[in-house]
Amino acid sequence: MALIPVELGARAYCVHVGDRLLEGIGDLAGDVLNSYRAGGRPVPVVVDGNARRLHGERLAAGLAAAGLEPSWYDIPPGEAAKSWQGLAALVDWLLAQGVERGDHVLALGGGVVGDLAGFACAIVKRGCGLVQLPTTLLAQVDSSVGGKTAINTAAGKNLVGAFHQPAMVIADLGALDTLPMREMRAGYAEVLKYGLLGDAAFFAWLERDGSAVLARDRAALEHAVATSVGAKAAIIAEDEHERTGRRALLNLGHTFGHALEAQTGFGERLLHGEAVAMGMVLAARYSARLGLLPAAEAERAARAIAEAGLPAVLADLSLNCDGRALVDHMRHDKKMEGGTLPFILLRGIGTAFVARDIDPDDVARFLDEQLTGS
Amino acid sequence: MALIPVELGARAYCVHVGDRLLEGIGDLAGDVLNSYRAGGRPVPVVVDGNARRLHGERLAAGLAAAGLEPSWYDIPPGEAAKSWQGLAALVDWLLAQGVERGDHVLALGGGVVGDLAGFACAIVKRGCGLVQLPTTLLAQVDSSVGGKTAINTAAGKNLVGAFHQPAMVIADLGALDTLPMREMRAGYAEVLKYGLLGDAAFFAWLERDGSAVLARDRAALEHAVATSVGAKAAIIAEDEHERTGRRALLNLGHTFGHALEAQTGFGERLLHGEAVAMGMVLAARYSARLGLLPAAEAERAARAIAEAGLPAVLADLSLNCDGRALVDHMRHDKKMEGGTLPFILLRGIGTAFVARDIDPDDVARFLDEQLTGS
Repeated sequence: MALIPVELGARAYCVHVGDRLLEGIGDLAGDVLNSYRAGGRPVPVVVDGNARRLHGERLAAGLAAAGLEPSWYDIPPGEAAKSWQGLAALVDWLLAQGVERGDHVLALGGGVVGDLAGFACAIVKRGCGLVQLPTTLLAQVDSSVGGKTAINTAAGKNLVGAFHQPAMVIADLGALDTLPMREMRAGYAEVLKYGLLGDAAFFAWLERDGSAVLARDRAALEHAVATSVGAKAAIIAEDEHERTGRRALLNLGHTFGHALEAQTGFGERLLHGEAVAMGMVLAARYSARLGLLPAAEAERAARAIAEAGLPAVLADLSLNCDGRALVDHMRHDKKMEGGTLPFILLRGIGTAFVARDIDPDDVARFLDEQLTGS
Repeated sequence: MALIPVELGARAYCVHVGDRLLEGIGDLAGDVLNSYRAGGRPVPVVVDGNARRLHGERLAAGLAAAGLEPSWYDIPPGEAAKSWQGLAALVDWLLAQGVERGDHVLALGGGVVGDLAGFACAIVKRGCGLVQLPTTLLAQVDSSVGGKTAINTAAGKNLVGAFHQPAMVIADLGALDTLPMREMRAGYAEVLKYGLLGDAAFFAWLERDGSAVLARDRAALEHAVATSVGAKAAIIAEDEHERTGRRALLNLGHTFGHALEAQTGFGERLLHGEAVAMGMVLAARYSARLGLLPAAEAERAARAIAEAGLPAVLADLSLNCDGRALVDHMRHDKKMEGGTLPFILLRGIGTAFVARDIDPDDVARFLDEQLTGS
């Protein structure tokens, strides 16, 4: 098992990465769940149907071993749950459960469960505790760590939310055994991201051993998840609330990716991780176009992404739009600052930086070329 | 003008107390409103109908003098605006206004406006800036300072919200000239609270000069508001998130008061400040009953409250319930901790403390006596 600290002073916590951790939750999280033991109350667990069916029994067994029992709150699968209505219903349920500020709610599932439960915990009684139990690769290496929580509104995705750090994250690698391959790959895009943005040696390891990660070899998986979480933790510790620009590096591939998701309707056609993968290829190639990155390095990034079975050729997505339309989507991104869009670009594999002086017209021309494969 | 710092490290801010401050907002808040000037955008102002009619022109003039113009968002008067629906509508409006994280939204009005606008600012894009412009005495001495924001839900009042400190509070004393006398008195209850809980000299000053405060004598009013805000700021600085028990002292009169509000339906029959006033009398008398406070001091507290025209005799409220019913209301208060209710009691005028070992049955018996005037 790997233990990764997230150094945030009074809000510091640890991410546990390993096998059979849900069964061992009593040992790992016994202390933070003490408030339920004292009151003889069940532990509120926010979950989606898939996660409950696949991992609910193991979690219940782990709680039982610690003398605790779960009280389940099922949210419907998919992004639709991340709504005002979904938030109000969950908060009302937590209040009906008698949740107090010193309690910790469990979130078992993927990013949607973690985002919604995290936001609810941020605002119920002005904040109660939270333990993230991510069951997808994307949630384990990205959304469960760092405290970002949110819902979607008519104006866009994740535009309403809070920074609310969990008291603990427990990433059970066995949960990934049942993850569909497409979701495994989508999560792997974020793993590749950590190599690309700040760790050339990790990227080289992924080029060599990434197939073992995707095949869910336990040792490879633990190394990939723990290294990814460690990379994110280091950035979060420097810039918890996205103020200095450091945390913005985590958005590598996300500004281009956001436009692709918006164009394809934020759905099954292009998963978030797939959009980020394609977005990283575009960020690398645009960096090369500006003369910041050798073209060979951009193609090396594109190759690692393509070899993982992720989209690396924009023309193949059949988007039926021009570069201008994609740039317009970017303008509605919450990453907009003072009317300009920060782009995360590369000076090398493992060396990302925030570029704030990018000409949107030039980006649109670049995208036109990529869209037509010219 | 008085300037009271709220020492919260990276979240430190100042409360400005004085005359004609809305007209001078450009001088006071020009810097924090700079993001609008750069973009040529109007400044979002959340307001209720009364505050806009009475103080809107002065604020608009102040903004105009700084080269800015307001964009008004009217919320309906009354607590009903503090709902999920009211929150979602305001957040959607802020997003439509293109609010960014570096922007500061203005909240002009009483506690409802400040609580709702503050919560919206806490969660839009995971947090934007806020300037509180309180126009009631209650909001100036209490709700605008300290960062508590909230909405009401079916489960109770203020059970959902966030801690979100403003960047600045501007308490314009002229706004109080048009405040109905009953609301003036209700706000004055919180002023008396600061004397009772921690400042015997201030309490003695209020016993002597409180009538000048209620008559809105400018010098007396400035002293009362500035001293109250200073008292609150000192407590907030020690315990921003209500964790050490220090901030709980601000709840003097509130546990009893909450039960009275719940029993009377949280409405016009008994305003929040009136309930707190009666609650402080009960806290003082219950402290005397436990032998913690000399009976003469409890009656001194009751006299100051009665002389301000605030309720000081429980039997006069014709509540038509017994002490048990009031204690049951307390059990549903969010101040519940680990199944017990902390009571703020007095060891003297100016010396409050948190008592955690109070027997609810004894409180019910005490209330029965008070209800019947026995």
